[in-house]
Amino acid sequence: MDKKLVEVCFTPDDYEYFKGRFEIVVVIDVLRATSAICSAIDNGVSSVIPVSTLEEARILQSKGYLAGAERQGQIVEGFDFGNSPYSYMDPKLKGKDIVLSTTNGTRAINIAKDAPVVVIGSLINLETLVNWLKKQDKNVLCLCSGWKDNFNLEDTICGGAIADELIASGYFTSNEDSSVAAKYLYHSSSHNYFGFLKSSSHRRRLKKLNLNEDIKYCLTPNQVEVIPILQNDKIVPLDY
Amino acid sequence: MDKKLVEVCFTPDDYEYFKGRFEIVVVIDVLRATSAICSAIDNGVSSVIPVSTLEEARILQSKGYLAGAERQGQIVEGFDFGNSPYSYMDPKLKGKDIVLSTTNGTRAINIAKDAPVVVIGSLINLETLVNWLKKQDKNVLCLCSGWKDNFNLEDTICGGAIADELIASGYFTSNEDSSVAAKYLYHSSSHNYFGFLKSSSHRRRLKKLNLNEDIKYCLTPNQVEVIPILQNDKIVPLDY
Repeated sequence: MDKKLVEVCFTPDDYEYFKGRFEIVVVIDVLRATSAICSAIDNGVSSVIPVSTLEEARILQSKGYLAGAERQGQIVEGFDFGNSPYSYMDPKLKGKDIVLSTTNGTRAINIAKDAPVVVIGSLINLETLVNWLKKQDKNVLCLCSGWKDNFNLEDTICGGAIADELIASGYFTSNEDSSVAAKYLYHSSSHNYFGFLKSSSHRRRLKKLNLNEDIKYCLTPNQVEVIPILQNDKIVPLDY
Repeated sequence: MDKKLVEVCFTPDDYEYFKGRFEIVVVIDVLRATSAICSAIDNGVSSVIPVSTLEEARILQSKGYLAGAERQGQIVEGFDFGNSPYSYMDPKLKGKDIVLSTTNGTRAINIAKDAPVVVIGSLINLETLVNWLKKQDKNVLCLCSGWKDNFNLEDTICGGAIADELIASGYFTSNEDSSVAAKYLYHSSSHNYFGFLKSSSHRRRLKKLNLNEDIKYCLTPNQVEVIPILQNDKIVPLDY
């Protein structure tokens, strides 16, 4: 059996370089879109429909869908939720289809659509996701959503964690600089994500918006055992 | 005296975000443009004229200048040198003005031209440069040249080393994610740049071209005591 490849891509802007070489793309937006999607799926939401623009979200909302939209860390006026994971824990959402548009995360998901398999990664479903990936024996790319096409620490560390675990189980990396950096940043931070990320720019951005509870939740690994997967433009629970 | 700011920018593409807030920009292209420029200035070259395009380099060459040009790690046909630091150590170059165009480094220098002061950083002039920066008491941006607008490890580590030293001497960082990552990557690598970077993609690229001697030279800190500075579109030795 040939060894399979794992790499980390810092931003959607860099995806073009990696595109086409990976059977599985893991999209990561720790603060907060992919954490919120994991929460929603864990809560029994039927599907999350990721859309890039507010216009698309509004059209679907007008057709009767519940719709979440976040820009600059805040709920966009007229929408039902933003991307706080807590909004998606309401038992009333069980069985519903929800539309979601966020600054970075849903854009990254839509950019990765060309890949055979797109799954949703975060710290809160880390262990479950990694265990599943280990069994797939496919080339895996961790696609960080970043912040407006800039590098961000929390997504990179999550990607580094996934890469590190897969490498420990027999995957290899061709040592793209982004993958090497992600691994080292994960090693530097793994004893205490919360402390390490206390200075991250997006965490400060959210803190100003009084989103400390969200941050704590999103930075606490292994709280849910779901693997959200993109199928026919909807994110649904993978039956693994 | 107010504390001054130091940040690290990963690529010329990201410079727009930082632009305008820094009195000094340190341009870094460890493998190999800024290392070669430090070598040339240390060797007594009068000036290095950085140009972005091969066309500009050819025009100046036709006017009698010696001209170096590198693309994809190799000397471009028809030019006098590429960007191997060893090419610039020839005693015959003393007192000459040399034109240089490289894949990443000279582009970064030209992008930073709006800044009040642009100096050239590398591992080979690290200590001299840092000691001078400490005395300036100005806001400092470390601008990594990257590789074709992608993040690279060696420039980031050099930027992290500069930032770390300045912070230790009283500068502050507003903790942009790139600066935090650069500091941690520097800490992870500082015991052994050569070992740490053995897997970097550009090092592998150069290794394939039999440029191991260049790599060793460029990754060995504090070999020269020059600070090349951009003045009237020419890089000249700073009389510090």
